[in-house]
Amino acid sequence: MDKHLILASTSPRRKALLEQVGADFEIIPSELRENPIIGTPVQQARALALDKARAVAHGRRSGLVIGADTIVVVNSAILGKPRDRHEARTMLRLLAGRRHQVITGLAVIDTGGGREVVAHEESAVWIRSLTDDEIERYVASGEPDDKAGAYAVQGLGSLLVERIEGCYYNVVGLPLVRLDRMLAEFGVHLL
Amino acid sequence: MDKHLILASTSPRRKALLEQVGADFEIIPSELRENPIIGTPVQQARALALDKARAVAHGRRSGLVIGADTIVVVNSAILGKPRDRHEARTMLRLLAGRRHQVITGLAVIDTGGGREVVAHEESAVWIRSLTDDEIERYVASGEPDDKAGAYAVQGLGSLLVERIEGCYYNVVGLPLVRLDRMLAEFGVHLL
Repeated sequence: MDKHLILASTSPRRKALLEQVGADFEIIPSELRENPIIGTPVQQARALALDKARAVAHGRRSGLVIGADTIVVVNSAILGKPRDRHEARTMLRLLAGRRHQVITGLAVIDTGGGREVVAHEESAVWIRSLTDDEIERYVASGEPDDKAGAYAVQGLGSLLVERIEGCYYNVVGLPLVRLDRMLAEFGVHLL
Repeated sequence: MDKHLILASTSPRRKALLEQVGADFEIIPSELRENPIIGTPVQQARALALDKARAVAHGRRSGLVIGADTIVVVNSAILGKPRDRHEARTMLRLLAGRRHQVITGLAVIDTGGGREVVAHEESAVWIRSLTDDEIERYVASGEPDDKAGAYAVQGLGSLLVERIEGCYYNVVGLPLVRLDRMLAEFGVHLL
């Protein structure tokens, strides 16, 4: 049975993480219009990850499709990618000096047998207090533009994140230990 | 006053982290023979970081010298770099399925005025339980060879670390938020 991995995501961070652990995989973006989903943040992240994986799995006869969706939650509000730099500033002001949650929904579908496994990982992140000047310099770097919550823990944003409780790679966008455990259910091991 | 940064370390991880945040710096390795230091793990990491920075600062008239020393502590024992692959296996068996501490001592010396600032950062790390086969495959990758505690959280080792409490970059070897705060005392800002 062919168990080659298909990552249903165009995120360069997810691609880099799978490469980091030496995984052999193919990228097929899910052309999913992200419709609003009802439910808690965890339910939304899980449902969207599954939708993405299903969109790519549909009609395929071989391969394990991996879908993922990462969201940033602060005070029960979900922060997506900022629409512009004004919104990026607003998000960073909201996150600075307090704790927030990062949730990644993960789905793995075996296109051969049709079996679906869904899980999620949740980490707490503390961003240090920031001056307006610091927010301005960070926004000007362009890094917040395409990131949920307007920051990247793995880039210049490493100067903002003072504490994590949970899986670090979940905060980057792909919880590797969790994914490895899910793939093991299909007989695939990353290590 | 010249405040250019000098990293007193040959660690490729520390170099990569300073580059990641766009810092302008020079590397001057401290040719320090690491003598055993008496004291708690925190005292040892701080003293060794200061020794390394002093060895490079000595005789220089300009620049801020950064010294760092990262140690892995489990059950009160300090794990250094494994001497061989046999010891790497032993360390990984010791760390698997339990929590350990990673401590980085940091020292910054202003060679102009002679002022020294020393601090440390401590993070808790949970490595998942590992089978003998997984340990064997990880050791065979060569990654543990030159790492304190025989693992690297930023490489293939990302499949081993399931949880962190504290600064992630401290576990890599250079706590960036802490360093930024120390440099700020000398008027230097990384962000």
